[in-house]
Amino acid sequence: MTSLTMIRAAAGRLHGHARLTPLLNAPLLDRIAGRRIYVKAECLQLTGSFKFRGAWSALTALDPETRARGVIAFSSGNHAQGVAHAAALHGVPAVIVMPADAPAIKIANTRAYGAEVVLYDRTTQDRDAIGTDLASARGLTLIKPYDEPQVIAGQGTTGLEIATQAAEAGIDTATVLTCCGGGGLTAGIALALENTPFHVRPAEPENFDDTARSLAAGRRETNATLTGSICDAIITPSPGQITFPILQRLCGPGLVVTDDQALHAMALAFTHLRIVVEPGGAVALAAAIFGRDLPDTVICTASGGNVDPVLFATTLQRFTDPA
Amino acid sequence: MTSLTMIRAAAGRLHGHARLTPLLNAPLLDRIAGRRIYVKAECLQLTGSFKFRGAWSALTALDPETRARGVIAFSSGNHAQGVAHAAALHGVPAVIVMPADAPAIKIANTRAYGAEVVLYDRTTQDRDAIGTDLASARGLTLIKPYDEPQVIAGQGTTGLEIATQAAEAGIDTATVLTCCGGGGLTAGIALALENTPFHVRPAEPENFDDTARSLAAGRRETNATLTGSICDAIITPSPGQITFPILQRLCGPGLVVTDDQALHAMALAFTHLRIVVEPGGAVALAAAIFGRDLPDTVICTASGGNVDPVLFATTLQRFTDPA
Repeated sequence: MTSLTMIRAAAGRLHGHARLTPLLNAPLLDRIAGRRIYVKAECLQLTGSFKFRGAWSALTALDPETRARGVIAFSSGNHAQGVAHAAALHGVPAVIVMPADAPAIKIANTRAYGAEVVLYDRTTQDRDAIGTDLASARGLTLIKPYDEPQVIAGQGTTGLEIATQAAEAGIDTATVLTCCGGGGLTAGIALALENTPFHVRPAEPENFDDTARSLAAGRRETNATLTGSICDAIITPSPGQITFPILQRLCGPGLVVTDDQALHAMALAFTHLRIVVEPGGAVALAAAIFGRDLPDTVICTASGGNVDPVLFATTLQRFTDPA
Repeated sequence: MTSLTMIRAAAGRLHGHARLTPLLNAPLLDRIAGRRIYVKAECLQLTGSFKFRGAWSALTALDPETRARGVIAFSSGNHAQGVAHAAALHGVPAVIVMPADAPAIKIANTRAYGAEVVLYDRTTQDRDAIGTDLASARGLTLIKPYDEPQVIAGQGTTGLEIATQAAEAGIDTATVLTCCGGGGLTAGIALALENTPFHVRPAEPENFDDTARSLAAGRRETNATLTGSICDAIITPSPGQITFPILQRLCGPGLVVTDDQALHAMALAFTHLRIVVEPGGAVALAAAIFGRDLPDTVICTASGGNVDPVLFATTLQRFTDPA
């Protein structure tokens, strides 16, 4: 079970290795939103998302012998890149199990970070069986994307930084909106900010609002489908087994944004903050800009920036005014 | 004459008002360049460029009575926005003199920061006469974009931060490449880094390489034309009267990049650093990536991020691979 002590210990291990990302704001963005918005720019984190924090935390929590044998992860996205880079910096093997039909650029990037990519056929092969076989044959340790206490502790370091940076900016109290998939980032930040005047609310894309519905229902609800969202980075079947009780105790209610609001937020982040945010990483900012019944001051995560350039270009053409 | 003492004093005045921008790097970008590249991301500065530093420094150096009467600047670009926002934060008037044919979005943005925009006709009216008349009628103080010691001191605070952040990143020695127009940023950084193992070299777009040619010739050379560059933010007739002697003493030789290299650097900054950089703000990064005869470690400024979204979208389509 992740505790504030574990998050502080993770922060110590991350110091000088992960990036202290800035808390950004822009007066013209505040005017559009009608409130003060501060953005924790985790898209500027190493590998382009907060996932590097959890990966580094988990790797550094392993005993050296276990770590030396290497790690394994299932992911075609930001978690894959975080684990691959964290392992490479430790000089230990990383195996990333990815579907063979994942975008070529994601496979190439994961390899470029130094990982061995093992592809499987989604229609005929069992991913978990492949992973279990590889892990036992080579003695690899599985790094789960969110249901792992040391991963949650790593993501929680984002919350410690938010508290410090908010104090420096003179913010006494605020609602903190997080981009929420399996809930690792949200749970970590909520634990880091427990007993502070900062209340955490998860944000999700519409039709993939398992966390909002789970918090409302008081039990883990499932998404009807896992495909068809532009917010691929934060689509999970349901809140995690470990993360959900933390969310239930500390967070909510959930906020839901449309795909167009997420894209519009990406375009506003381009114009006013000059950061690159992916759709799933923009849902909290979208909620901050377009949400109702929010306080005067909102802090949100821009949790990742690994976005298809064609989608980004199209979004700029739809949602910005030319110079 | 700007001194290290003045730069340190400006840093004190900027503390808590300007943003401490991050020094970013990316392993996959280093692999493309064949060297380690660190990027001082001034595109993340308030108003989207380093110009806010110089504006704030100049405003805070005025005596309170003079400042209260207000300031005036000639600019349709980043200097205008920096002066407008710095003045608004002080609650003092800012008048920005802009050509009537400036892009509507730039006029709108400058007004949105709270400035009074005075438009003039480039073909029939004398900009300097308009400015002089306004300044004397209202008691406004002119804030020049680079040939002003307190502006240079403000831009120099970027150099102090580079020195601190480089030490934190374990960088002992490096070449520092700057995006160079009139030379305010370059002169300020060079003064801040004098007597350190960091040598400053200005970068410019081809055909607008007045500084490189001036440094080679030992006297101020002029650009043949001032129009037709995509790097509008850093196009000036020649190095400044005050800045050039500083550049001559501390900097060089100059580096020159093509427009396509600047655009390619913008696209690589999108993919690997997740920052938005404008063409003129990308010339130092372009020199760092594509330049020859550079050391293993290069630090460069990404000096601004106020870019036309249509140009940005087109650049992504030309220079990136889809996901």
